[in-house]
Amino acid sequence: MASPARHDPNDPSIDPAFPLHRGGKIEVRPAVRIRDAEGLSLAYTPGVARVSEALEADENLAYEYTWKSNTVLIVTDGTAVLGLGDIGPVAALPVMEGKSLLFKEFAGVDSVPICLDCKDVDDIVETVVRIAPAYGGVNLEDISAPRCFEIERKLQEKLDIPIFHDDQHGTAVVVLAALLNAAKVTGRSISDLRAVVSGAGAAGVAVTKMLLDAGIGDIAVADSKGILDSSRADISGTKSEIAESTNSAGFSGPIERALKDADVFVGVSGGHIPEAAIASMAPGSIVFGLANPNPEVAPDIASKYAAVVATGRSDFPNQINNVLAFPGIFRGALDSRATEITPGMKLAAAYAIANVVGDRLTREFIVPSPFDERVALEVANAVAEAAKHDGVVARH
Amino acid sequence: MASPARHDPNDPSIDPAFPLHRGGKIEVRPAVRIRDAEGLSLAYTPGVARVSEALEADENLAYEYTWKSNTVLIVTDGTAVLGLGDIGPVAALPVMEGKSLLFKEFAGVDSVPICLDCKDVDDIVETVVRIAPAYGGVNLEDISAPRCFEIERKLQEKLDIPIFHDDQHGTAVVVLAALLNAAKVTGRSISDLRAVVSGAGAAGVAVTKMLLDAGIGDIAVADSKGILDSSRADISGTKSEIAESTNSAGFSGPIERALKDADVFVGVSGGHIPEAAIASMAPGSIVFGLANPNPEVAPDIASKYAAVVATGRSDFPNQINNVLAFPGIFRGALDSRATEITPGMKLAAAYAIANVVGDRLTREFIVPSPFDERVALEVANAVAEAAKHDGVVARH
Repeated sequence: MASPARHDPNDPSIDPAFPLHRGGKIEVRPAVRIRDAEGLSLAYTPGVARVSEALEADENLAYEYTWKSNTVLIVTDGTAVLGLGDIGPVAALPVMEGKSLLFKEFAGVDSVPICLDCKDVDDIVETVVRIAPAYGGVNLEDISAPRCFEIERKLQEKLDIPIFHDDQHGTAVVVLAALLNAAKVTGRSISDLRAVVSGAGAAGVAVTKMLLDAGIGDIAVADSKGILDSSRADISGTKSEIAESTNSAGFSGPIERALKDADVFVGVSGGHIPEAAIASMAPGSIVFGLANPNPEVAPDIASKYAAVVATGRSDFPNQINNVLAFPGIFRGALDSRATEITPGMKLAAAYAIANVVGDRLTREFIVPSPFDERVALEVANAVAEAAKHDGVVARH
Repeated sequence: MASPARHDPNDPSIDPAFPLHRGGKIEVRPAVRIRDAEGLSLAYTPGVARVSEALEADENLAYEYTWKSNTVLIVTDGTAVLGLGDIGPVAALPVMEGKSLLFKEFAGVDSVPICLDCKDVDDIVETVVRIAPAYGGVNLEDISAPRCFEIERKLQEKLDIPIFHDDQHGTAVVVLAALLNAAKVTGRSISDLRAVVSGAGAAGVAVTKMLLDAGIGDIAVADSKGILDSSRADISGTKSEIAESTNSAGFSGPIERALKDADVFVGVSGGHIPEAAIASMAPGSIVFGLANPNPEVAPDIASKYAAVVATGRSDFPNQINNVLAFPGIFRGALDSRATEITPGMKLAAAYAIANVVGDRLTREFIVPSPFDERVALEVANAVAEAAKHDGVVARH
């Protein structure tokens, strides 16, 4: 008889995710070793008082003599966690710990999970501003739309450290990277493409803005009620802005109308696109069904018509995975001491990810592996360069 | 010519505290190793979603499957940092990092510095409540009196995790431990002693309450204006409470009046006590001048009259150092999943620290070395036992 504590991989009743999570996935450790009373007297009193006095005279020294230069807050309110929805701050913690682990593993960035027991936009902004002094950046995570847009904007106004909502911008950066290579492998450029985005939440809005910034030929966006066009009376705020800046062809009604003869489909909605709509797209189409675990279009169906297919899943080729973006983006932002993350920095990150693929580019290899160590390095360098170019680097 | 970056220990212009602090003293690391896509799929999506779903169904599972069971917040507003005063949240960070380092090094407790950019009592309470879900306890640090009393009380009312203001209770625990042994080595017990405390701030109030809980014979407390007695019209709040519950001999006026024939002096004020006042104390007196770096009574002066002398300094015998208390106290509170830290738990910690000295007790060795590994272990065990005895252990 096997002990119940022993993991038997053939026993589906024992999920290996649970023993891996026992006691948590991250820890806070000394970065210096204190062996004796003399070390203690430098790292703590009385030595630490001299460092604190220096910081009181010049707060900028915190970037030299504390962990601030390398440490970000990972902030969630637990309202839009993965595909699980509003599961609350405590249940969100394993995801935030996972994020923290990835930050360190892939880019050496330290990060601290903050799972907020409040949901009001102004309460969240106020709380993050109050706890920000010890941190060099804020990664917003799994906060529902449209609140996430306002929270990010207000935080960036109030704080002089980079604010980055990964569900928006991480996704958008990797989608653009993948699309750059999908266009290349099918002999086109971004400006040749007409795209349709399904989903006008955090990811859909950010993907759309990013593809516009990258010079996409045309783009239409649909929410659950159909294509966003400026005649729609039921939309406001961010969706109205999107309607104004997209859909120059003037589609309206169900998403299928826009998909006919379109070159690109990007699904970030979790809905379902019928096979006939995919079949109606232009020859050599590019289909990204990114909902997890069930893509908007099953990859085997999409492959019957599309030249390039990508998903959010690790068990199919071309996984669109945010881990390709956020570690290197924060590495670059922290290294350059950027005060914000500009559109130019995000574009630079996307191009850097696409370029890592290089000569290995095929229709089934449009993004690098997350375990390719060049990814975070190249992204960080590109982002730091773009920060300098965009003039958002704090004076030292 | 030596490079300026090279540390020359004979060059006083180069303070070794600064290179030690470069880049910060703590880091957030993975506690599990992710080597490949399979590990990633367990620690992050999709595996982490199953853990989050389990926590959504039962929040108590956070104590098993996240870092919450081992991780505390270290919260300051930077208003009373060491002896430096109100230096602000950023300048306080090196001290909080030092605390975090000590938590891990001495008791394996993970901790996260929160340096608050707000000072209002209710703002601080509200902020800590909002960020508490991912944490198993709160160590308040370097918050000025009397705000610290109200912040601690309100947080304990609102949260079901232990709240502990180290400047109060850590100091009080180690003072009591030292006094227990000072009494023992001079052939007396706590109830034989009449004590005088100089200072009615965070530490003074907590020391006084603790000595009362431990059954001190009598105790009088003085602030900068003199002895607290119930006729004083200029005091209110905590100081009034202290005046009501102390000074049964009815001293009033300057502290010197209470010191005459007293057995114990405890200085936590930063003021200066004249030699004549120490000389007027009872034979076999016990003098703890704990202000840093300048004790209320210089040890060489105190030693002319007192049987036992202690300071807060590492370069004299009998250093009263909070690091003897707080790591083990939180270790015991977390291990027992205590919902608060009771007077009984603090008393247990003091007795445990005193007992570690054991047979080695002399007038110049009344507290153990912070590097004695038994200290945190014995304190943790005693605190966990007391938590169970006091019935403040959360049901699992």
